[in-house]
Formats: sequence, C-alpha cells, structure tokens
Amino acid sequence: MTARFHVLALCGSLRAASINAALLRAAARLAPSPMVVDVFSGMGRLPLFNPDDEVELPSAAQALRDAVAGADALLIASPEYAHGVSGTIKNALDWLVSFEPFVRKPVAVWNASPRAHHADDALRETLKTMSAAIIDTASPSIPLLGAHLGEDGIVESPTISNAIRAALQALHDEIVREPRQHGPSFPLN
Amino acid sequence: MTARFHVLALCGSLRAASINAALLRAAARLAPSPMVVDVFSGMGRLPLFNPDDEVELPSAAQALRDAVAGADALLIASPEYAHGVSGTIKNALDWLVSFEPFVRKPVAVWNASPRAHHADDALRETLKTMSAAIIDTASPSIPLLGAHLGEDGIVESPTISNAIRAALQALHDEIVREPRQHGPSFPLN
Repeated sequence: MTARFHVLALCGSLRAASINAALLRAAARLAPSPMVVDVFSGMGRLPLFNPDDEVELPSAAQALRDAVAGADALLIASPEYAHGVSGTIKNALDWLVSFEPFVRKPVAVWNASPRAHHADDALRETLKTMSAAIIDTASPSIPLLGAHLGEDGIVESPTISNAIRAALQALHDEIVREPRQHGPSFPLN
Repeated sequence: MTARFHVLALCGSLRAASINAALLRAAARLAPSPMVVDVFSGMGRLPLFNPDDEVELPSAAQALRDAVAGADALLIASPEYAHGVSGTIKNALDWLVSFEPFVRKPVAVWNASPRAHHADDALRETLKTMSAAIIDTASPSIPLLGAHLGEDGIVESPTISNAIRAALQALHDEIVREPRQHGPSFPLN
C-alpha cells in the first residue's frame, strides 16, 4: 500500500444537484489523512456497454478501468430509479465485469435514501457477483433524502460529517488490517 | 386500436451476436397478422439518463419516447449482467420514468436465459413501479442460452418459433380483450 490511500468515488446520478454527488464531494473534503477521495468525473462520458467494444476499448471506458486499477478502494453512492439501480451506475459496472483489478477490490456502498432498498440490494448483489469485497462497516445509510443539504450543508452537519468520517476511517482500517485479502490489484492469477 | 397492432421491441444488449437481439428479430419475422413488431434501433444511441436533460430532451431520448407513445405494446428481451439488469435496458427505462404514455402500457418480458432470474425479477419490479401492465401470459422463458441459435435458427426451430408465436398471440389477445384497461396511450388523466 502506498503512503497515500486512494479511494475512487463513483456516483450513479448525473444530475447537477444530485444528493449522491454532493455526498461524495463532501467525502472528498472530509477524508482523513492519508486518504484521498477522488470523485470519478467520467461517468457521464461512458458509452453504453457493448461487449463487442471490449476488443478496442472506448477511451472513456479505459479511463474508468485505469482509475479502478489505480485505486485502493471504491466508494459508490447511487440513487434508486423506479425501484432499481440507475442505468448510469450499472453501465459503469458492466464495463468492469471480468476486469481483473476489480476482483477483491474493497468497496464501500453508501445509501443516501435509506427507505429505498431495491437499488441498494441489487447493487450489492451485482458487486458480490463481480467478486468485489464489500466492506459493511464502511457502508452506512446516510439519510440525506429530504434533508435539503448540499455539499456545504453535509460538511457542516456534525452528525452527517461524523458519519462520513467514520465510514471512511472504517474503510481505511479494514484494508490496512487485511491487505493481503484485498490486494494487490495487479496482477491476479 | 388501429387495424395494425404495433409492438415496439427493446433489446437490452448491444452485442451484434446477442441472442436477445436475434430473438426479437425472429419475433418480427414470426409476428402473426395484424401484428407488426419493430425492433427499436436507437438503444445504443441513447445518452445516459440525466434528469437535468429532461427540460430539453436529447433527440435519441425523444425518439424512444415517440416510439413508445406510438406503440400498442412493448416487448423487452434483455440479458443478465453480473446478476443484474443490463445498464443499457435500465438506462432506456430511466428515460421513460414518469413519461405518461408509458403508464398502463402492455409489456411482454421475454427471458432467453431461464436460469438467470435476478435481472428478470429486477426488470419486472421496475416495470411495475413504472405502472406498466406486464402481460404474464405473453412473457415466457425461451431457453436460448447455450442453444447456439441465431435469428434463422430460431425461426426454423418449430418449438421456439411456436413459443414466440404463442406469446405474441397472447399479447395481442390480451389487449384486444381489455382495450380500456390498457389504452388509449394518449391522453392520460
């Protein structure tokens, strides 16, 4: 593990005012040293997954894979649309199925809408199927829906910012404790 | 109902050799008169859903909505990726959430991989949440995975072509029997 601890954050909503995006930006500001949270900026540029394109990978998909390969852990926050995952987060994951550096990657899954469980359940089922290592102690429900908090409000809320710091710390501690279980990312097998 | 009975088919895979795409193309050839099955050609051109873009709809999303509004019924065939729906089919549905002509639209859901139930279950949950009218008698499992049949092979297989014809006939009959329950598409409320 490098001195810096890199977390790649994937947001399942492309909406400018998305609470999931605000949550991840707040996490980037609140991350305890030596952790660095980078919110992946290319989600909206990913083409729709096509297995035929895996031969010559589109640049946006390559950028996602490179970012995943270089991260010590992933952090996902995604909305529920019509009792399902968002097409945006599933499309990103579809590009990562069978991508070896994803296997055993530690993943924290944050749910900003605790009353919505369909998408959270489906996302976890998919992540498990992809052999990610979901870190439950780092995967809280953070009740933001209806709280009308933006990024600043989240950072300024003692309750929520403490929950974010605690989850990030748990993610860090879990991986420091079990480095062989989760890494290295390259090479596998 | 018009004399012609228009079914819009949505495929959740963009792969050229997709069995789901082959199944839908075969359905278009096998459709009993007066039914016409059109496979929607714009799935891969849909941008990733962004609620902010609903104000000025991207042309590909508008084309999807127009096709849905003009259809008497929908027919969906989609693969399972990592125990979940494909990002491609969910992205298309995300553009149709809260689109009024989708409400009470009769939908047949075909599953070409009967051993895969996660995506089928999740798709049905989302369709129900979107107030579609899933027509169970028109929604068979059609065991194509591993059968190594393309479009021609499907059409030439008595067992499978009969299953397709029966499902399409059931879709037609259900809507003819209950036209008020399912239509008209425009206007609602």
